[in-house]
Amino acid sequence: MAGKATIAIIGGTGALGAGLGRRLVGAGHAVLIGSRSAAKAEDAASTLAANATGTRPRGAANAEAAKSADIVFVTVPWASHAAILDEIAPHVAGQLVVDTTVPLVPPRVARAQMPPEGSAALATQRRLGTGVRVVSAFHNVAAHKLQTDEAIDCDVLVFGDDPKDREAVVGLARDAGLRGIHAGALANSVAAEALTSVLIGINRAYKVDGAGIRITGINGT
Amino acid sequence: MAGKATIAIIGGTGALGAGLGRRLVGAGHAVLIGSRSAAKAEDAASTLAANATGTRPRGAANAEAAKSADIVFVTVPWASHAAILDEIAPHVAGQLVVDTTVPLVPPRVARAQMPPEGSAALATQRRLGTGVRVVSAFHNVAAHKLQTDEAIDCDVLVFGDDPKDREAVVGLARDAGLRGIHAGALANSVAAEALTSVLIGINRAYKVDGAGIRITGINGT
Repeated sequence: MAGKATIAIIGGTGALGAGLGRRLVGAGHAVLIGSRSAAKAEDAASTLAANATGTRPRGAANAEAAKSADIVFVTVPWASHAAILDEIAPHVAGQLVVDTTVPLVPPRVARAQMPPEGSAALATQRRLGTGVRVVSAFHNVAAHKLQTDEAIDCDVLVFGDDPKDREAVVGLARDAGLRGIHAGALANSVAAEALTSVLIGINRAYKVDGAGIRITGINGT
Repeated sequence: MAGKATIAIIGGTGALGAGLGRRLVGAGHAVLIGSRSAAKAEDAASTLAANATGTRPRGAANAEAAKSADIVFVTVPWASHAAILDEIAPHVAGQLVVDTTVPLVPPRVARAQMPPEGSAALATQRRLGTGVRVVSAFHNVAAHKLQTDEAIDCDVLVFGDDPKDREAVVGLARDAGLRGIHAGALANSVAAEALTSVLIGINRAYKVDGAGIRITGINGT
């Protein structure tokens, strides 16, 4: 994954998608904002272009964005996860899909509620099929922090069954100003997904707005 | 949970139990090491007494240790978890049980493999029944570090449905020299349990021997 990739951000009109978009255009990647509506995607791309420094993002309908990208981020609410995967599924064979989805079930978003597959990441792999390379990451970073240029005191746990695919996403985390960490197989994604509910609860209990996590004992990475 | 509690450590002959025992006797708690064999428990208590500074631990068979304690730690391998819970179940009605169990399934211990109940903690609650107060904690701290007096760069996520019970265990973490954090309902325990497999994998991938976790953004706790 040398050089700059073309990256689609499916659900790029949301807070996490906008934050990732901002950081990735800043790093020089070609970013395609995807939405169910091409018009909304183009609006979001214009807003991002006006507020970020870097390459000029473009907007497109989800399928078109996915088709044109090397790497496809999925940053959608759990409630629309399955439907949006079905939209992009015909267009991502052989591509690298980076799922950031946390299976939050309102109103109890501070309670871990994993789907029958064990995690959103495993549900994604099952839905897209084994021909699609799935990595999951960016579950624990506060979206509103990604939308700034500030340093973020949070690691990005990267899960995937292929170390090369994980390494590509560790590199994208670095591009976004974060430390990415090889966190093992896709089956381990449940750790970070459940941790998001833990962090939401910690934000409430400790009256803070951006609790995060760090892996200790691997300094120098 | 004011003052010093009598604490049983079921599975106290293992590495994690011995480490917790060391730290808790150092804090002045009365510690009862439990094992399936009373003789082995007494041996482990003698070894602990010889190597730790603090109150004098005693050893007893699991049921006897559980019966005599205010707080019952469960520090047993996943393979013997159900059988040992059945041993202590008749003796812990109304008591606080602190489960530290991670459902590791050898040989793939770096892969999260949650039980059908969703986590070891939820399996424990189901097995002991709703009359027993269950908290889970201490999943991510390296046992060999607890067996020393060194500072440990790792937080203790504490899960439980009753905030008062969680607070008691946050206090015990503090007594053990660690920062305990209210991490929400028992259902959230899956986060820390799965994270242990992540940390085992990180230890291998990054060639370190004690990766841990810290919650960021709540400084001053």
